[in-house]
Amino acid sequence: MSALLLSTKPATMEVWRRELLALDPSLDIRLFPDTGPVEDIIAAVTWNHPPEDLYRYPNLRLLISMGAGVDHLFRPPGPPPGVAVVRLVDRLLTTAMSEYVLLAVLRHHRQDAGYRALQAARVWEELPAPDTEVTRIGIMGLGTLGGDAARKLRALGFRVAGWSRTPKALDGIETFSGPEALFPFLARTDILVCLLPLTPATEGIINARTLAALPRGAYLINAARGGHVVEEDLLAALDAGQISGAALDVFRTEPLPPDHPFWTHPKVIVTPHVASITIPRSVAPQVVENLARLREGRPLLNVVDVSVGY
Amino acid sequence: MSALLLSTKPATMEVWRRELLALDPSLDIRLFPDTGPVEDIIAAVTWNHPPEDLYRYPNLRLLISMGAGVDHLFRPPGPPPGVAVVRLVDRLLTTAMSEYVLLAVLRHHRQDAGYRALQAARVWEELPAPDTEVTRIGIMGLGTLGGDAARKLRALGFRVAGWSRTPKALDGIETFSGPEALFPFLARTDILVCLLPLTPATEGIINARTLAALPRGAYLINAARGGHVVEEDLLAALDAGQISGAALDVFRTEPLPPDHPFWTHPKVIVTPHVASITIPRSVAPQVVENLARLREGRPLLNVVDVSVGY
Repeated sequence: MSALLLSTKPATMEVWRRELLALDPSLDIRLFPDTGPVEDIIAAVTWNHPPEDLYRYPNLRLLISMGAGVDHLFRPPGPPPGVAVVRLVDRLLTTAMSEYVLLAVLRHHRQDAGYRALQAARVWEELPAPDTEVTRIGIMGLGTLGGDAARKLRALGFRVAGWSRTPKALDGIETFSGPEALFPFLARTDILVCLLPLTPATEGIINARTLAALPRGAYLINAARGGHVVEEDLLAALDAGQISGAALDVFRTEPLPPDHPFWTHPKVIVTPHVASITIPRSVAPQVVENLARLREGRPLLNVVDVSVGY
Repeated sequence: MSALLLSTKPATMEVWRRELLALDPSLDIRLFPDTGPVEDIIAAVTWNHPPEDLYRYPNLRLLISMGAGVDHLFRPPGPPPGVAVVRLVDRLLTTAMSEYVLLAVLRHHRQDAGYRALQAARVWEELPAPDTEVTRIGIMGLGTLGGDAARKLRALGFRVAGWSRTPKALDGIETFSGPEALFPFLARTDILVCLLPLTPATEGIINARTLAALPRGAYLINAARGGHVVEEDLLAALDAGQISGAALDVFRTEPLPPDHPFWTHPKVIVTPHVASITIPRSVAPQVVENLARLREGRPLLNVVDVSVGY
């Protein structure tokens, strides 16, 4: 009569069920595809679930993403009308993402590749020292993740700017907003970090035109979604030297196909979508809290604006 | 009659001379070994200068290290009696050192070596996720450099402790002090970061006994001085698996000899003493300021306690 549907990889569903029941043993949890009567389902916690399936549950009122991103819920036909969508906001998710970004920034900034090559050749040689105070980092997306990364990079002494759809204000961070500010933002960015939500407005936003707007030799870090990058354009920009390198955690096709040129590109660092991984124990309390709020008619936490898709 | 002696590599001396004269054109600067009459020299700015040479200048009153470390000034016979010793304290030196430490910590913590090996094999596979909140970093040395690194690592969410000769208090950092606290400090440390000054009390402090006191699989980062590490003991601990890896910027012999096993050790990352490099333009003002204080008999900045050597 008021069941919660879980849908993701089977082993992961078991972990989620255990953590949710530990907090609220009264929960009636169904693991997809064993839904029981479709009328029972009032809420669903999902990752990469087929969107059209969600139209089968007449009493569905709440969709909870298993991660910070919700783009998987907005694939056509999108969430059923009238269903609220919430995402996870979690300190550990945020922390892990900022770690990934800082590692990628520092690896590039401190010439890690150069020093590793010198070590392989047993050559003791100092490379030109980087100057942190004039190195300009530009973060696309200034939500929970982008804001945290921006603050932490600023604390290291970098010049940090951010670009977002709507205007934001962050201490010590230069902010740009809206489509007309994108090119000025890119023109002052030596290290571009993509932490945008994937929406129709941001799909393919890293392309030949935007890459060309960066200073020559800029570096790219994408920890958002593969759909943000036009991969052929990035490869061309890398080979032309317009982009000096890239750290990529996400791809158009995942797993990245074995014959994809990114795997062996000398200027590309590939990680298998691990920048930030949801830990069910850490996020279960907010799922239980939102279910309680749903039952009691109170305002939900971390609500997604379905009109813009994030 | 009141000249300043510079002594380091010739090309570096020229940069120092230019930056100092830009601030105070009246300075009478001599580049070693062209000292002119030894009676003229009242102060010296040096790096790796032969300590016994400094006994030749009867009017020498101030020794300024060209870096944060002053151990090069305390090699036998040490600074002449009655000569004040000061070191550099510089925001850029501190920032650069913390960058090196954060890069080394994150590279280890985020399993960079594992993911690079997977990329080389074109394998899309998630490695066990690190848990930042239970990862215990231990910083040896809580002066300007150690304190800054500690605060920045704490801000990333790590559990950070520090060990120092004298008691210190830092917000959010567990602190240990004195020889009797060294082993308890090591026992709770997963990633050991050495930022100690090199003194008779810290020479060889990272040795078979102290490495054995760390939890099995601990990681070592040394950005202080090669003299802190008993290199054969570290190699044995790496090969026994007691230490899982090391990032080393400094060595007993520099440049690191081409046949040294660190160059090719699969668990060792070698950089050529570049964690933090003095930028003369950034530090020239404090040198000029200390020369003015010396002339006017005012208290000097960043004075070294010659009785303990840092």
